[in-house]
Order: sequence, then structure tokens, then C-alpha cells
Amino acid sequence: MAKSRTELMVDRLRELQSGTTDIEASAVVSVDGLIMASALPANYEEDRVSAMSAAMLSLGERIAGELGRGGLSEVYVRGNKGYVLLLSVGADAVLTAMVKENAKLGLIFLDMKRAADDLQKLV
Amino acid sequence: MAKSRTELMVDRLRELQSGTTDIEASAVVSVDGLIMASALPANYEEDRVSAMSAAMLSLGERIAGELGRGGLSEVYVRGNKGYVLLLSVGADAVLTAMVKENAKLGLIFLDMKRAADDLQKLV
Repeated sequence: MAKSRTELMVDRLRELQSGTTDIEASAVVSVDGLIMASALPANYEEDRVSAMSAAMLSLGERIAGELGRGGLSEVYVRGNKGYVLLLSVGADAVLTAMVKENAKLGLIFLDMKRAADDLQKLV
Repeated sequence: MAKSRTELMVDRLRELQSGTTDIEASAVVSVDGLIMASALPANYEEDRVSAMSAAMLSLGERIAGELGRGGLSEVYVRGNKGYVLLLSVGADAVLTAMVKENAKLGLIFLDMKRAADDLQKLV
């Protein structure tokens, strides 16, 4: 039986995470804050990830617009225990990743961009 | 006459901007969303910068906490016309900078961290 789109998206998220141990968890969330696909370890709640992703996407878009930065493409939030990275997946969704503290962000963003391009075809 | 703290903060912001042409504008905003000092060109409204900075600081803190990333240290928002960077200045304020599209972020963050350390002594 053919895989569903969600299954294909989950496969792509797992592929993203298999490329590096620095990405602890990832999810694709609709702009409305609904989970489309996720690869989250047990200590992450889907609802929390989706709500936070949608809130940041919405505020990020507003800020980029109001402060003359154009359309939103990425957001990162750095805490003292790691990062939350968000990348647009087309106009309707966002790819969110929880990343470890000492990660090399350049490489992670590159991997995430590739994943976002693939995911956009599935959304 | 001795300079006021706000004047000293504005001096430090101007020094930050003089080090690179990539930082278009910068401001120090309290966690309540009030401007403490700013070095903004005419096309930036203080109220808009302060409101957006405080909103992002608040959501960034919430997201870093809820998603296990610890206390907030930095946020960046990337649009297709440039970046908005936010750095904590102690517990009570944030340094916000509007940065050009093709800027080298590593250097900018380093300059901003130095500025944030100096500003913290004035807040």
C-alpha cells in the first residue's frame, strides 16, 4: 500500500534527524498551528511544539513586515540549553527543529533547507 | 555636564553601528516594551521597534522555556530583505538591531554581545 503524505513527511523528518545527532526533535506545523507530521522523542508534546511554532511564525511574520525585513524565511531562538529553529515550508507550513546547545548551525540550517524543499512538495 | 545614562547608551549604540554598515538601526528596549535608548534612522518608528522587540522577547522566553531550551539569550528573525536580531541585556532589557540582507551574522552577533555587555552596566 502506498504511504500517506504524513508518513512520507515523517520519513523525511527522520532522515533529517539521522543526518546529525544535534537535532533532537522536528515537526511540520501548519500556519494554523496544527501538526502535519512529527518526529518527536517522548519528552516533547506535539501540542506544545505546534502551538509554539505557530505563535512564533505569526509574530515573526509580523516583525519582519513591520520592521522592513520583507517576507519571513527563518527564525531562531537561542536559549542557554539549545536552539529552536523555524523555517518556512512554502506559504502554508513551517518546519520546526529543536537543536542541541553546541550544534553547528550553518550545517543544520542547510540540512533543514533541503528538508523544507522536499517537504514543500508533500504539504 | 555629565552625560545621562540614556545619552551614554545612545553613544554605545552609535559605536556599534559605526563598526559596520550592515546594522541599519538599533535600540535598547525594556522588557515592558519601553525604549531606553535608540539610534534609529528616520524611516524607523521608535514605538514600532519597541513594541515588536518586547513581543518577540516575551514569546522567545516562553518558547525557550516550553521547549526545554533554558533561559533566552538570542532571537533572530530572517526576512528576504534582512534580519532583526535581539539579544538579552541582563534580565530587564533587550538590544534590538535591524541588519541588512547580506550581512555576516557571526561578526554582527559578536559586536552585539560586546555592546550588550557594556549596555548592561548602564541599564
